[in-house]
Formats: sequence, structure tokens, C-alpha cells
Amino acid sequence: MPPAAESHPPLRVALLGCGVVGTQVARLLTEQADDLASRVGARLELVGIAVRNAAAPRASSVDRSLLTEDAEGLVARADIVVEVMGGTEPARSLLLRAIDAGAAVVTANKALLAEDGPTLYKAADAAGVDIYFEAAVAGAIPIVRPVRESLAGDRVRRVLGIVNGTTNYVLDQMATTGMDLEEAVKEAQDLGYAEADPTADVEGYDAAAKAAILASLAFHTRVSLDDVAREGIMSVTAEDVAWAAQTGHVIKLLAIAELREGTSAGTSVGAAAGAPAGVSVRVHPALVPTSHPLANVRGSFNAVFVEAESAGELMFYGRGAGGAPTASAVLGDVVSAARHRVLGGKGPQESTYAELAILPASAAVTRYQVRLEVDDRPGVLAQVAHALAEHGVSIEAVRQPTAPGVSDVAEPGVAELLITTHAAPESALSATVAAVAGLEPVRTITSVLRVEGA
Amino acid sequence: MPPAAESHPPLRVALLGCGVVGTQVARLLTEQADDLASRVGARLELVGIAVRNAAAPRASSVDRSLLTEDAEGLVARADIVVEVMGGTEPARSLLLRAIDAGAAVVTANKALLAEDGPTLYKAADAAGVDIYFEAAVAGAIPIVRPVRESLAGDRVRRVLGIVNGTTNYVLDQMATTGMDLEEAVKEAQDLGYAEADPTADVEGYDAAAKAAILASLAFHTRVSLDDVAREGIMSVTAEDVAWAAQTGHVIKLLAIAELREGTSAGTSVGAAAGAPAGVSVRVHPALVPTSHPLANVRGSFNAVFVEAESAGELMFYGRGAGGAPTASAVLGDVVSAARHRVLGGKGPQESTYAELAILPASAAVTRYQVRLEVDDRPGVLAQVAHALAEHGVSIEAVRQPTAPGVSDVAEPGVAELLITTHAAPESALSATVAAVAGLEPVRTITSVLRVEGA
Repeated sequence: MPPAAESHPPLRVALLGCGVVGTQVARLLTEQADDLASRVGARLELVGIAVRNAAAPRASSVDRSLLTEDAEGLVARADIVVEVMGGTEPARSLLLRAIDAGAAVVTANKALLAEDGPTLYKAADAAGVDIYFEAAVAGAIPIVRPVRESLAGDRVRRVLGIVNGTTNYVLDQMATTGMDLEEAVKEAQDLGYAEADPTADVEGYDAAAKAAILASLAFHTRVSLDDVAREGIMSVTAEDVAWAAQTGHVIKLLAIAELREGTSAGTSVGAAAGAPAGVSVRVHPALVPTSHPLANVRGSFNAVFVEAESAGELMFYGRGAGGAPTASAVLGDVVSAARHRVLGGKGPQESTYAELAILPASAAVTRYQVRLEVDDRPGVLAQVAHALAEHGVSIEAVRQPTAPGVSDVAEPGVAELLITTHAAPESALSATVAAVAGLEPVRTITSVLRVEGA
Repeated sequence: MPPAAESHPPLRVALLGCGVVGTQVARLLTEQADDLASRVGARLELVGIAVRNAAAPRASSVDRSLLTEDAEGLVARADIVVEVMGGTEPARSLLLRAIDAGAAVVTANKALLAEDGPTLYKAADAAGVDIYFEAAVAGAIPIVRPVRESLAGDRVRRVLGIVNGTTNYVLDQMATTGMDLEEAVKEAQDLGYAEADPTADVEGYDAAAKAAILASLAFHTRVSLDDVAREGIMSVTAEDVAWAAQTGHVIKLLAIAELREGTSAGTSVGAAAGAPAGVSVRVHPALVPTSHPLANVRGSFNAVFVEAESAGELMFYGRGAGGAPTASAVLGDVVSAARHRVLGGKGPQESTYAELAILPASAAVTRYQVRLEVDDRPGVLAQVAHALAEHGVSIEAVRQPTAPGVSDVAEPGVAELLITTHAAPESALSATVAAVAGLEPVRTITSVLRVEGA
């Protein structure tokens, strides 16, 4: 137990934002006040909640006397500022003001951090105050702290994350019910998992912001949203999902950050000869083998799979969104910042010493599964295989599947081919697909999907 | 990046023990010296490795000039002491000596911590130094830090851990190959997963030590090895494993720590009316539904499933043992302790403010699956059901299964019953089983297994 728990004056906590998460943070600060005081060594006093409209309806648990529209005034009288308003402005200005005034800050704002985190980190460093952001990535799941602190003595090689619950719910529903994407998105909206405008989720923007944050932490290198190659789930069809199941996979939207060792052979991240060294950061749908731990992440759950040189494979699983889960992560950070106020010390700062190169999307190296319709006659397979070989893409397997109830191909004279490649750079694959599409007996390239976690 | 990385004098690290883990810690301290210096803000200098016999053969990566048999002398000249020798003595005396001399300590010694952790925690607190022990529970998996820090703003309700890789390997092999326990243990020994004397693993002592540590952290209450009800896997038969599969379960050895709210109804931990409040800590084999995330933890992997009031369900998965994985956790702690030396501050102390009661084994409340052989005639089921009801144990389901190739029961006139109960206190269940066994038409109680995670 921290000594002198009662002798330290209360710490003033300011809350910026009172939406789903803010409401829960306020509730927990009140309900768990005694526990928090025992853990921190001082009481945490919620001194105000900044909102845009103090007169708007709120959950009954919110103490309306704490509401204020004067966020700047509130920030000026706090020891710890918790930002759960989201968006770039005024969140950034308010956090910078809090930092300048010497307050510790806790934020759940992934978009702001992915876009302009370094401005905040530098300001916090200069002011000698804490900045914590566990809730910005994968909600309740402790992932920021484990990567920043628990793995500080290891070398992370790869991070594969299911970090967007909406898209995981949609893809999981497609896999379990056979419904198509539009139906699944509609259902997610009806259930409150997806917003009226689902763009940020289904186009991968939300996952990309988290990928940038995770990559920065894992590789001690500054990675921003612009560095993340991004592809959403809108092109995933019910047929893709059914085919995935047929070949022992599930389709997941993955946030991927991986180290590429350049030309060194035999590494676990599949470096191709002559490839440049650096970090590849991307978000896209991928086929994940059903035997992989990420394949079992169902519904709106999140999980982050980490491969580190010494630790090996790790996975962190839990709720990636929602008021109470996100508030749990926020409060863990508040306790850390508060303990430093009471006992001295400071949390981790931004770590960018490695300064690794960020590789372009075209340099990403993965395996692919290409599905195509071809004329059903001898020699076609050889022609296709030859086109791949010419572009340096080697084939792991070619199947001419018979998938009852799955394939749309009923036309006589047309065969479906399913090609799985060995790891190849995205640039080589793109060129290959273009070449194959141009072959005379090739009718259609039905789909091209990356395979990860194999 | 920490400022003044080069200006801080090197920190002297002493290593106690040079077995599987110690060898890897020494290797990584050397190989990753530059990375570690950048992360800490000072170089970490391995100043010596204490061993019992400096002349014994070692891995070629060990710098023999660092070996010493004078552990006490080594400890006296270190800033950070890493203990990976195991056992109670001399580990405890050496750690206390290090703490008294003002060194931060990092230990992987679960047995020592579960037996006498508070002596060390109090000494570290009095001396104002860090004590870290991530590697003591579940090897490479970050679980100590998340529970102590990330969940510091939440209330943990339950921890279910697969924290012993040997027994998980054995049970997994039984499930996947149908082999019996002795064969699977033998195979685990051949593969190096189990020791020549597997008692500590198969009898649950190792898991119990980890359960005590996890319970202490999760519930802010002192829990020692003696508080843990313990049952190993030796009584698990191939038939139990096959039956588990038939009913949609797998058998896992679980380390369980859960909060019991006393008489309050409707909690997620299944409190029975009139039951006392407190913490139940136990290790035993249990049926886990195949849909539960823990059910997919295969081979020698470990995982810890945590239910917290706000965060909901979390799971942490990875390698629970092995030289490099354990060394990863040790080095994460070393970096934390070292950063405090450079930048000021201190890690978390022991937190025991909650002082919850430790409940006796008989008060544990779980569901049960009871398998028995009875005379195959009308009225028997009613008799058995009546005996359960009399002891306050309510039945969820009774099945008279036909399990081809599973059941040994070929005798005519004998039927097999499979009873699943609702949650009931262990005391009630014991009395019930005794009563049922005494019924005239009951031939044998074949097995009684707890059901967890449902």
C-alpha cells in the first residue's frame, strides 16, 4: 500500500468529453473513489467535465454541476487531464495547453496521435509531464503498456492486430451466416456496432491510426497515419468468405506492422532477396489460417498478435471498444499518472532512436491467394504458371476446386483456378496479376487476397 | 528517446544463476546492448554471473570471465540484481542483501514469491528500491504488469490461467491423440517439456505458486501458496478426456482466483445465497467449453484469462517457459528498473489494502460434471436427482449418453449417467457425491470434474 495515502492532497482530474466513454470515466471515478485512493495514495477529485453543450441531455449518472463549456478554464485547474472528446481540434490545443500548464494527460484519441502524436509527445517531454494513451489502441486490451514496457528488453518483429471491432463483427457474421457485406454492415448498424456512416471503420481508417501507433511503439520509429498503406473490407464478397472457409482460412481485417531485415535470408518475416530494410505498416483484409490464434477472435472482439525475437508469439485479446472497457484503460493510465504525482517518477517517453525506414506499400512481402476463371482446356494452367514465374512469383499450390454451393461457375468450358503463392513483394504480385489477366484463356481474376499468419 | 543517454554512467547488472534462463539473459544483455542503452538512457553492464560451480560446462555464449562463486560479493557491487537461480535459499538471502545494499531486484522465482514474497516486498519498500517479477508468472506473457498497472483503475473479478505448459502439453496430447496420461507425460519428458521428476508440474505446485501471485495482484490482498487449494492432473483419464470432447469441452489445468461477493445475487461469479465474501484461489483440472478462448490454448503455450468489471473479458497468451521467452520478461523488468535509476521514479509496491478474506477450498462455487454407472432400470434417475436436490445441488442436465468407442460400459443392465449441475459450493457437492455413491442402484462414481469458463 502506498504510504501516507491520506496525507497527500487530492489530485484534480479534468475530463474533456462526456460521450459514451466520458460518461463511464466519470462514473468510475466516483464509484471507485475509495479503491482508487488506496491504489494511488491520494484521492482523485473530478473537478469538471468539458462539453460542447452543457444543457444537452446526459446519462443520469453524470453530475451536472461538473459540466462546463469552458474547456480551457477547466484544463487550467487540473493535475491530470483526460481527453475523450475525439477529433483533432480542439483536442490537440487543449492537450497542449494542459501540458504547458504542467498537467499530466491521458488520451484515447487515436486519430490525433496517429496524425500528430509527436507534437504532443515532444511537448510532454519538454514540460516533464506524463502522456498516456492505452485506450487509443484496442480499447480495454492492455497493449500499449506491454509493448512499451514489458517488451522493452526484446525486439518486436511483427504485430498483427484485429483492432477494429466493427469490421471484425461484419466479417465474422459473413463467415458464420453466409450473409453478404451490405447485410452484415446493416446488421452491425442496427446493433450499434457500426455508425450511421461506417466509412472510418469499413475503409480501414480507424485500424490504420492504430497501426501507426503500434508500429511507432514496436519499432522505436516515428510512424504516422500517412505511412500506413490502407485497404478496407468493402471489396470482400460472400464468395471470398466461403472460399476462405473451403481452404482452411478466415478473412480478417488486419493492422500489420513488420520489420523487414533487408537482404538477410531465413528470417521469419519472409524477406525477399534484395529487398530494402525497414518497417512495413499496412491495413488490409487477409486470409488467416483457422489454426492461428487470431482466427478465433469472434464478433466485435479485438486481439493483437505480437512476434518478438525472444518472447516468441504473444497475443492480447479483449474488448476493443465500448464505454466501460475503454474507460478501464483510461483509468489505468490515470492511476499511473496519479502515482507519479504522489510518489515521483515519470512514464515512458516517445522512443524514436531506431529511426527505421518506412517501406512503401509496394515493398510489402506476403503470400497471396488468387482466384480466377479460365478456359477449361489443357495447357492453361501451364500458361498461368509461366506468367507468374516470369515475374518472380513462385507458386505454392494450384487447385482446380470443386466447391459445391460456393462457385458461381456453372458455365461449361470454364474452370476455376485457385493459386496460392509463396511470399512475394506486392509490386511483383501486382505486375503478375496484370499479366495473368491479359492472357488469352483467362476470363476473370475473381479475387486477390493476401495470406497472413501462416 | 531518453535524454542524456550517453552522460549517465553505466548501470551494473549482477546475474544470479546461469541455467536455461540465466544463459539467455546474459546473451541478450550483450547482444542487445546498444538497443537497451538507447531505451534506458545508460548502458547496462553485466558485471558478474553467480553460479554454484564456476568450473562446470556452460553454453559457449557465456563469458566465463564473468562467472563467480561469490554471489554475496557480486550482489554488493550491483545497481540491479537479476535472480534466476530458483529455490528459496540462497535466493531469498541474496535478494534481501541486494535490497539492503540499495540495488533494484528482478526475479523470476515464483516459488519464493508465493511462499515469502511479502518479506521481499516489505524490504524493497523500506529501502525504496524496485522489485519486479514479470517472469515469475507465465514466462514471456506480460501479465504481472497489466494486472498491476493497466487494470489499476478497474476491479478484477476473476482470473483463469493456463500457467503450466507441461500439463497443458500433456492434456492437449491426450485430447488430440487419445493417449493416456502416463504416455503423454513420458512423451513430454522425452521432448524436454517435463522434468525427470514431474511432480511440481503434474501435481499443480507450480501452477499454485503462480495462482497465489496472480491473486495477490488482482485482489490487492496477500495470498500465499498455503492459501491455494491444489489438485493436479494425475487422476485425469483418457476416458475423461474423450467424454469432455463428447460434451463440447476440453480439460485444462486451471489456476483460478476469483472474487466472491458473499450474499449479493446476480453476480457473474455465481455466488450462492449465504456464501461468505472473499477470494477463492485454487488449481485443479476443469472442463472448459470449446468455445472459450482458453480452450484453444494448445501444446505448451500458456494463457491467462481475466474478467474485470469494466474491461470485461481479456486474455493474454504466449510462451510460459523456456530460456529466451523468460529472459524477454526479465529484460523488460530490467529496463524498467534501469530507467528509474536514470530518470527517477519507482515501480509499483505491494498493494494489500483490500485485505479480503481467503475462502477455504470447500467454499469454492463451480458447476460440476458427474459421471456414474447405475443399474439400468426405471426410477434410478429420480433417486439420484432426489439425492442431489436434498443437498441443495440443482441439476442443469442429465444425459444417458451413448458414446460409441468411448464408454467402457458394455455390461448389460448397467447404464451410464452424465449429470451437469448448476453452480454449487464444493462442500455441498462433496456431500452429494458421498450420498449418491451410497444409493443402492449406483455402481460407481466414475468421475467428478468441475466446469469453468461457461
